[in-house]
Amino acid sequence: MKYSIGVELGVKNIVAGILDKNGKLIRRDAVPTNKNKDFKEIIKDLCSLIKKITADEDIELRSVKYIGVGCPGVTDNKHGVILKNYSLNFTNANVRDEIQKYLKIPVFIENDANCVAIAEYLLGAAYGTESSLIIKVGVGIGGGIIIDGSIYNGFNFGGTEFGHMVIDYKGRSCSCGRKGCWEQYVSGSALIDQTRQLASENPDSILGNMVKNNVAQITELTIFEAAKAGDEKAKKYCSEFIDYFAEGLTNIVNILMPEVVIIAGPISKLGNTIVKPLVELLKERIYSKELNLPEFKMAEMGNAGIIVGAAMLGAFKDERLDDLV
Amino acid sequence: MKYSIGVELGVKNIVAGILDKNGKLIRRDAVPTNKNKDFKEIIKDLCSLIKKITADEDIELRSVKYIGVGCPGVTDNKHGVILKNYSLNFTNANVRDEIQKYLKIPVFIENDANCVAIAEYLLGAAYGTESSLIIKVGVGIGGGIIIDGSIYNGFNFGGTEFGHMVIDYKGRSCSCGRKGCWEQYVSGSALIDQTRQLASENPDSILGNMVKNNVAQITELTIFEAAKAGDEKAKKYCSEFIDYFAEGLTNIVNILMPEVVIIAGPISKLGNTIVKPLVELLKERIYSKELNLPEFKMAEMGNAGIIVGAAMLGAFKDERLDDLV
Repeated sequence: MKYSIGVELGVKNIVAGILDKNGKLIRRDAVPTNKNKDFKEIIKDLCSLIKKITADEDIELRSVKYIGVGCPGVTDNKHGVILKNYSLNFTNANVRDEIQKYLKIPVFIENDANCVAIAEYLLGAAYGTESSLIIKVGVGIGGGIIIDGSIYNGFNFGGTEFGHMVIDYKGRSCSCGRKGCWEQYVSGSALIDQTRQLASENPDSILGNMVKNNVAQITELTIFEAAKAGDEKAKKYCSEFIDYFAEGLTNIVNILMPEVVIIAGPISKLGNTIVKPLVELLKERIYSKELNLPEFKMAEMGNAGIIVGAAMLGAFKDERLDDLV
Repeated sequence: MKYSIGVELGVKNIVAGILDKNGKLIRRDAVPTNKNKDFKEIIKDLCSLIKKITADEDIELRSVKYIGVGCPGVTDNKHGVILKNYSLNFTNANVRDEIQKYLKIPVFIENDANCVAIAEYLLGAAYGTESSLIIKVGVGIGGGIIIDGSIYNGFNFGGTEFGHMVIDYKGRSCSCGRKGCWEQYVSGSALIDQTRQLASENPDSILGNMVKNNVAQITELTIFEAAKAGDEKAKKYCSEFIDYFAEGLTNIVNILMPEVVIIAGPISKLGNTIVKPLVELLKERIYSKELNLPEFKMAEMGNAGIIVGAAMLGAFKDERLDDLV
């Protein structure tokens, strides 16, 4: 029996999972990412986690065919190096070499949104398509493009920064230095910030009462729940959020016109609450109105997308998928 | 000796050219596009033009290996059909079948900006690159993407509509129904409209005097000439134009990060007057500031780009380039 390991090297946690040869996630575990440690120590923690979960499952390391690591930032997947990760403060960090100090297994790395794109392409919502686009609404907006079975990421791995597409030339300031970037309007951070502000400004509203005793537990979905419960200001905000979402998405579809667009991240749980109005707005706004629209779907892999995609990286890049699925 | 024919089926003119097997354009001629005629009659004119130029050059039609047609709008290059061309009012026009009524030669069609992208990739500024992007500033903005030696145009041929990327959410109204589309700020039409307006509002300015007796001869370059001659309002406008240009281009580079970006259309004659400030603004605005930037170049094929690219379509799609170049 052969296995592969997928790791999500996130800002908060390192999550590792074991995939069996049928592509089934048979074990998953996590440890906190110790941001105060340096890169080498974080990778040591990562390797200890892999050793722990394989030992727990009685899987010998020589049965593990590939290790894949998905992480935010710019990754050079050719050389297994994280070129730049702002949130973990890594620059030119050679993940492959560092892991192989502890584990003599082929290592592949890829940007986390690209891992989700690969997982959805191989096992989820983009299965069987020629071109697909993932828009992952997380803290910011991550993206992945698959064309003819390959990840497209630009000549220097710096592409698919969909969140930093300006849609409002004189709009809200962005950390990248520009104004009006899409992720200032459409992102988990935007949703949570706005929810907090609306709740504090309207303490007696439905939303205000929902979060009164637990502001820390506001999620990306809270404002949609308040809107559903009849909060008028929440309704107005959600409608504006979907409008901004459609504005950026129309831009991207006008440019890339993929066969399928997949929305990932916490808001994918909203399903038709988001997809239906988005598709209606897109139909109105798209340039080539007489053509068939791409299909819009929610991600199917849930929060396992990154580790499943990461675990598949080796087989995907080797084009030896029959080895795994 | 084998030849191929490239045709630009434009709104104003049908231009046809003969390429020899070294990729050299040995003859070019044009007839006006008779917009009052229907599709079949226009194609008949196109075929007569091909017959005329081959006869003039003493080239037998059986020596012509491919005919390629480049035209604006959405083209289904698989089936040789113009799906939609607003300016000529064609819908589902089968160019291949119609031409083959008169000429028994393989026919290929492609969007005109994609023809330019192919010409620049095979013979011009994108030669030897893995990924390239053409931004063709004509009446609107046309675009072409080449990835790994293939045109990328989306699942329904409706992609690369870069001009209809909104950069100013509440901005100028566009014919597509949205507000703030890039081509409302950066296009030949925008340049000419603005020049006309500035000249009429400031009849005694340098620009006003330049165009006083010949408003009809205003081109995309007039306002840049006025700026160079010291016209302050023209200078300000040109600087704003480059700013808008950089804003859209930064969006596209953040998403696609091609190895080379090629600017085509009349303004490509401006060379460093445009490229230098554009690159400076891009360096400031791009998301991944620590990575190498794409190379920015002006198109090298000039106004022959469409017919040369069209003539190469057959060899390009057959992957038999050794047949031609």
